[in-house]
Amino acid sequence: MPIFSKNEINRRLQQFRSEFGDCDVGIGFSFTNSYYLSGAPIMHSGRPTITVVPKHGEPVIIIAEIEKGRALQLSPIKDMRAYTDDDGPNVDAAVRILVDVLKDLKARNVGYDANWTPSATINLLKTMLPQLELSDLSSVFDSMRLVNSDEEIEVLRIGSAIADVGMQAFLSEAKIGMREIELAGISMRAMTEFAGRTYPETEVKVNFASQQGLRSLQAHTATNGEPLSPGQLMCVCTEAFGWSYNTAVERVIALGDLNPEQERLRDTLVLAHRRAIDAVAPGVKCSAVDNVARKIFNAADYTQVHCGTGLARGVQNDFEGRIDRGNIRSYNHSPLLPGMVITIEPWAIVPGVGAPRHCDMVLVTDTGHEVLTKTPAGNLRIG
Amino acid sequence: MPIFSKNEINRRLQQFRSEFGDCDVGIGFSFTNSYYLSGAPIMHSGRPTITVVPKHGEPVIIIAEIEKGRALQLSPIKDMRAYTDDDGPNVDAAVRILVDVLKDLKARNVGYDANWTPSATINLLKTMLPQLELSDLSSVFDSMRLVNSDEEIEVLRIGSAIADVGMQAFLSEAKIGMREIELAGISMRAMTEFAGRTYPETEVKVNFASQQGLRSLQAHTATNGEPLSPGQLMCVCTEAFGWSYNTAVERVIALGDLNPEQERLRDTLVLAHRRAIDAVAPGVKCSAVDNVARKIFNAADYTQVHCGTGLARGVQNDFEGRIDRGNIRSYNHSPLLPGMVITIEPWAIVPGVGAPRHCDMVLVTDTGHEVLTKTPAGNLRIG
Repeated sequence: MPIFSKNEINRRLQQFRSEFGDCDVGIGFSFTNSYYLSGAPIMHSGRPTITVVPKHGEPVIIIAEIEKGRALQLSPIKDMRAYTDDDGPNVDAAVRILVDVLKDLKARNVGYDANWTPSATINLLKTMLPQLELSDLSSVFDSMRLVNSDEEIEVLRIGSAIADVGMQAFLSEAKIGMREIELAGISMRAMTEFAGRTYPETEVKVNFASQQGLRSLQAHTATNGEPLSPGQLMCVCTEAFGWSYNTAVERVIALGDLNPEQERLRDTLVLAHRRAIDAVAPGVKCSAVDNVARKIFNAADYTQVHCGTGLARGVQNDFEGRIDRGNIRSYNHSPLLPGMVITIEPWAIVPGVGAPRHCDMVLVTDTGHEVLTKTPAGNLRIG
Repeated sequence: MPIFSKNEINRRLQQFRSEFGDCDVGIGFSFTNSYYLSGAPIMHSGRPTITVVPKHGEPVIIIAEIEKGRALQLSPIKDMRAYTDDDGPNVDAAVRILVDVLKDLKARNVGYDANWTPSATINLLKTMLPQLELSDLSSVFDSMRLVNSDEEIEVLRIGSAIADVGMQAFLSEAKIGMREIELAGISMRAMTEFAGRTYPETEVKVNFASQQGLRSLQAHTATNGEPLSPGQLMCVCTEAFGWSYNTAVERVIALGDLNPEQERLRDTLVLAHRRAIDAVAPGVKCSAVDNVARKIFNAADYTQVHCGTGLARGVQNDFEGRIDRGNIRSYNHSPLLPGMVITIEPWAIVPGVGAPRHCDMVLVTDTGHEVLTKTPAGNLRIG
């Protein structure tokens, strides 16, 4: 079964063609944008998958032979040009096929996603086709991907439900003295069990991260074997990727009794998070949502707010997928649009106390918003 | 505690300087190469971390403010130039700082890792410093990273032990009728529990993938909710990332009774895997190891061998880290070197039967090899 309908992919291809301007051909080199155009999420792992869309004519996928079967099942694009590991280094082999495709198309002006295409790939293409004009279509891809279709929103709902289950498993199983990483296992198992039972057709990956106390000052630290100890604010994040669409829930949890400074930070976080969600509606500027949270931090005298309040989610991971126009930040005056799915996750760095946060997935609707993740974000406590 | 000693990082920086030729400055833009030079594994998630190494003078890390605390703990490089989300789009903000650093250094010829640096980042740098000469240092990084130091081998041993635990959990818990993704949860929980108890200081991520029967023909398909059903060859992969160093075990497992064609494929895979491991020794060409497995497939009349027999592991993921010179492939006549850690994972696509494989982590030693993963690869059976 394909992930997205043939109609959906054809709509994307048509929109892409209509927006890539004077280009003869538009190309998605990155995982994210090749997947967007083809409907087939083929991870590179060193072997490029490239989706080539001529202004006039049928699209072509350049792909490793071993991935062809999977791509044929998932994509309505049937013209696959494959290379194998015997053809020499994979990037060289893929670019050689691309050169042949572009020659056949008599392409002179080619657009591509420069934001995630390796410089070496483009250098090689330029060496082989020195006359080719190249333009950056990153912003075309970004504006298409910023607004999710109904089919994409369904995928994001699945991930959100799975991430919620992971958080609920943590909240019901965690006890003082257990190791963080043991709880990572419990939470991930609950997510996979639920996903398998409820969405057996969906390919799912799950993830868990947590930091206690001052370790939350180191952003993006992974979970380790530290036992849960009382008197700390803990930050817990459960993540689910359904078909590579990234969803997450984060919660700030009190371990036992907190001191007044910890309580004050926890209460401020709850308020900033709730008020920022309340502000989400179509037409509201991203900067305005950011400002709601920022004002609450400032009023509480938390001045180290170095991060925006959230970001557009979707196909998004540590390496690719971030859309600047969907960043909830002070400089970004773009309006929220119905179909955007963003996280609201305001936070501040508070030396000596920590930097935990609440995070929820929020869909912008025609009239306001819907919070896709359902775990309560009030005063949570373990022990 | 840093992951790597100050001596280790200083040795890397010295070697890098001595190998980047006429460049005034060498830069690691990618996660993989910035981490290699700095010792700090800061995932980008849209916010670049760039390690800048002048030929003469102290290195500089350009980094998001929120990641600085973590980088200062992990890296001996102390000159951090930070940007925040208020400074505008993160790539622009990081490149502006880079331009200032390069101007201060009066740099004219700059080398960088073109294989994983986005084309748009380099285009922006060229626009801001049109006189700058840029050269591609990908092969310098690759040859340094190809051979692991003792400290890196220790990290790879940790991951290998964790991946083994995940596979053993699958082998002891799996029963016909259980859902694949439920077993993913069981295996991942066993890995995290073991990791937390045994290596509490190591940041660990784990992963699990499985395919039954013909689904293994679709390479890299993720786990779904399909129940284990008898009469199939199943492919199971457990992966552990210790400090982002990727290790994996894969096993071909019979579910109940196999038919003669399935048995023949299973036996051929066991033989190709064992013989290819036996061939690993310093000085042996990568192509020769590949050829050992390929001959066994050919003799069994399995002709669809589109993949090399393995690859150099280390910091390696779906997006970055692959070193072509460490690919175990027919065209790659580079010799194996002591300190390389490769996977041996020969496989063939057999229409109507499947495409599973055994995979182990193998360290090239001074005199031969050591298999770091310990799960037996004989005739494994569930049900």
